[in-house]
Amino acid sequence: MYLPHAAVQTPVFMPVGTQATVKAIPQHLLEELGAQIILGNTYHLYLRPGHEVIRRLGGLHQFMSWPRALLTDSGGFQVFSLSELRKVTEEGVRFRSHLDGSSHFFSPEHSMDVQIALGADIVMAFDECTEYPADFGRARKSLDLTLCWAQRSKDHFHAHQHERPWAENFAGQNQSLFGIVQGGMFPELRREAAERLVEMDFPGYAIGGLSVGEPRTLTREIIEATLPFLPATKPRYVMGVGYPEEIVEYAAMGVDMMDCVLPTRAARHGLLFTSEGRLNIKNRRFAEDQGPLDPECGCMVCSRYSRAYLRHLFVAQEVLGSVLNTVHNLAYYLDTMESVRDAIELGTLPALVARVRARSTGGASSETERPGSQ
Amino acid sequence: MYLPHAAVQTPVFMPVGTQATVKAIPQHLLEELGAQIILGNTYHLYLRPGHEVIRRLGGLHQFMSWPRALLTDSGGFQVFSLSELRKVTEEGVRFRSHLDGSSHFFSPEHSMDVQIALGADIVMAFDECTEYPADFGRARKSLDLTLCWAQRSKDHFHAHQHERPWAENFAGQNQSLFGIVQGGMFPELRREAAERLVEMDFPGYAIGGLSVGEPRTLTREIIEATLPFLPATKPRYVMGVGYPEEIVEYAAMGVDMMDCVLPTRAARHGLLFTSEGRLNIKNRRFAEDQGPLDPECGCMVCSRYSRAYLRHLFVAQEVLGSVLNTVHNLAYYLDTMESVRDAIELGTLPALVARVRARSTGGASSETERPGSQ
Repeated sequence: MYLPHAAVQTPVFMPVGTQATVKAIPQHLLEELGAQIILGNTYHLYLRPGHEVIRRLGGLHQFMSWPRALLTDSGGFQVFSLSELRKVTEEGVRFRSHLDGSSHFFSPEHSMDVQIALGADIVMAFDECTEYPADFGRARKSLDLTLCWAQRSKDHFHAHQHERPWAENFAGQNQSLFGIVQGGMFPELRREAAERLVEMDFPGYAIGGLSVGEPRTLTREIIEATLPFLPATKPRYVMGVGYPEEIVEYAAMGVDMMDCVLPTRAARHGLLFTSEGRLNIKNRRFAEDQGPLDPECGCMVCSRYSRAYLRHLFVAQEVLGSVLNTVHNLAYYLDTMESVRDAIELGTLPALVARVRARSTGGASSETERPGSQ
Repeated sequence: MYLPHAAVQTPVFMPVGTQATVKAIPQHLLEELGAQIILGNTYHLYLRPGHEVIRRLGGLHQFMSWPRALLTDSGGFQVFSLSELRKVTEEGVRFRSHLDGSSHFFSPEHSMDVQIALGADIVMAFDECTEYPADFGRARKSLDLTLCWAQRSKDHFHAHQHERPWAENFAGQNQSLFGIVQGGMFPELRREAAERLVEMDFPGYAIGGLSVGEPRTLTREIIEATLPFLPATKPRYVMGVGYPEEIVEYAAMGVDMMDCVLPTRAARHGLLFTSEGRLNIKNRRFAEDQGPLDPECGCMVCSRYSRAYLRHLFVAQEVLGSVLNTVHNLAYYLDTMESVRDAIELGTLPALVARVRARSTGGASSETERPGSQ
């Protein structure tokens, strides 16, 4: 995938950098970990420090000193999950900031303006993330709104994309606007959404509205039911997933891009992913464990620190615990996805899928924490 | 100064790693910053994870994966400043843990046992940190207790130092026990304390009981009044100081070692030390400042990130803000002390003292925050 700031090898896992930082990790460590593209959240950056501030500072890449690729979401998911007193009309969404209660309005046009100001390589159409559960009528209506907003997003994006902050440095290269498939948990709606978005002709397509509380089997079913209607020649992105065995499985199904807060958020709660399964570092059994977090991992944490030390940092609520746990979990996710790319080349992907699935049964329960999309 | 784990160039500033971590900073970054020796706090490590745990894990160096030099304090300062319901007798101090209210007893002998188990290169005699203000009678009585405890610390240390966790790896090299000069704000008591400790013959001497709330001029006076009575041929360590201009001034007076939480704690509160003076990064005037924190600094923060970004991280309460601010402040302190060592070689120390003092008048008020000793 060739983007203005970088060529990205797919399938790719994208760490989430909500407020212009992948929580607790300096950018040079992200680079060392092999992160190719990271996310910024439009809703958060719009509220603080403000998209116009970031535009004046040269765009999000320059603001956060991240030279590789960036993707911003549309703000839709956060408006629906974080803000207060939302009022949705066909025009857009009026909401109150979760930070200070101030009133704001997001429309497809405004989302485009904000994302153009931020200047990420990939921007997302403004959508309504349909809640779960939603009955057919509700999902239908919500989807119609999303499709209407997709067209408006596209029109406004094409009229204004030249306003991106880095226009001068990347002559001839544009931001890319991806469409988002909604439709709740109804395969026929998903198919319709995919077909209508493909008619609109986006350079890439996302499957949204998943990881909203539905069972994992349903997540998989909806992805499976949607993918065939999205062109394999363009990037296909599933938003907000997932556990390691899920991202490997979805990649094997043909998904090119995934993002999730799970590795970073779980790390801060002491939940760590390893080749031996999941482990909760606060467990007393690690108190005198001199071994590395994951004996098969070569990250800077596993090559230097013991489980006993990491447990101590967690129990003592030391910031370094968050830093080191996050480094390891990201290393695990990014290395896992690199293995997927290698296995695709070598034709050994089914074996890898089985191996990673087997790991997921070790350690802590697989249902202890749902990833969530933000 | 040749210690079992490293040769340390003096004068040296020692970052504080209270709970076996210099807050927010991975060990490899501390190494890159040039930290030669760091502190661990005996009181904290005794309570959590426990000195016997650390002994079984090979000592504090191995536990936290820090191959360079370490110093542990005696626990006295924290027992007096953090714990609850203290009861001091000649025998020692009974206190309640600030963590869970559990009851504990520290005597000079117990402090030695704990510090031997931790295995730092330098350990400190158990002392009573005289409060400020204290009248002559109170300071006299407190000093007598400290001197009595110094002898008991020494006797117990010499009887048990072979129990250190790394005995096998450093045959022939011992931990070093330093004595601590108390005496409140009374020069004659300080002199007496110094002379009696020198009679006991320690391999190094500390001046304690400073940075306890007294005015800065008084801190300087007490150091000045005490140093002549401590042998210049042995390390002289002033505990719990100070601002950059202070550590430079004290080094010029002949102090070899200093430690302080100021660079790390101030960093977490957004107070940053630069060649242009102090600045408070949350200040609105930095909101769109694309310049580095300190244009004269070559640290990884100043060479990559803008003031605007650092302000954003601070305002958004992002962990990365603490990480980056701490890296810079430590770089500033450690680089400053390296300049002192260079200036000593070149004979240009007076000019450096004047230059660093001039910087301290820039930026935020010099009295906004007192360092404190832990």
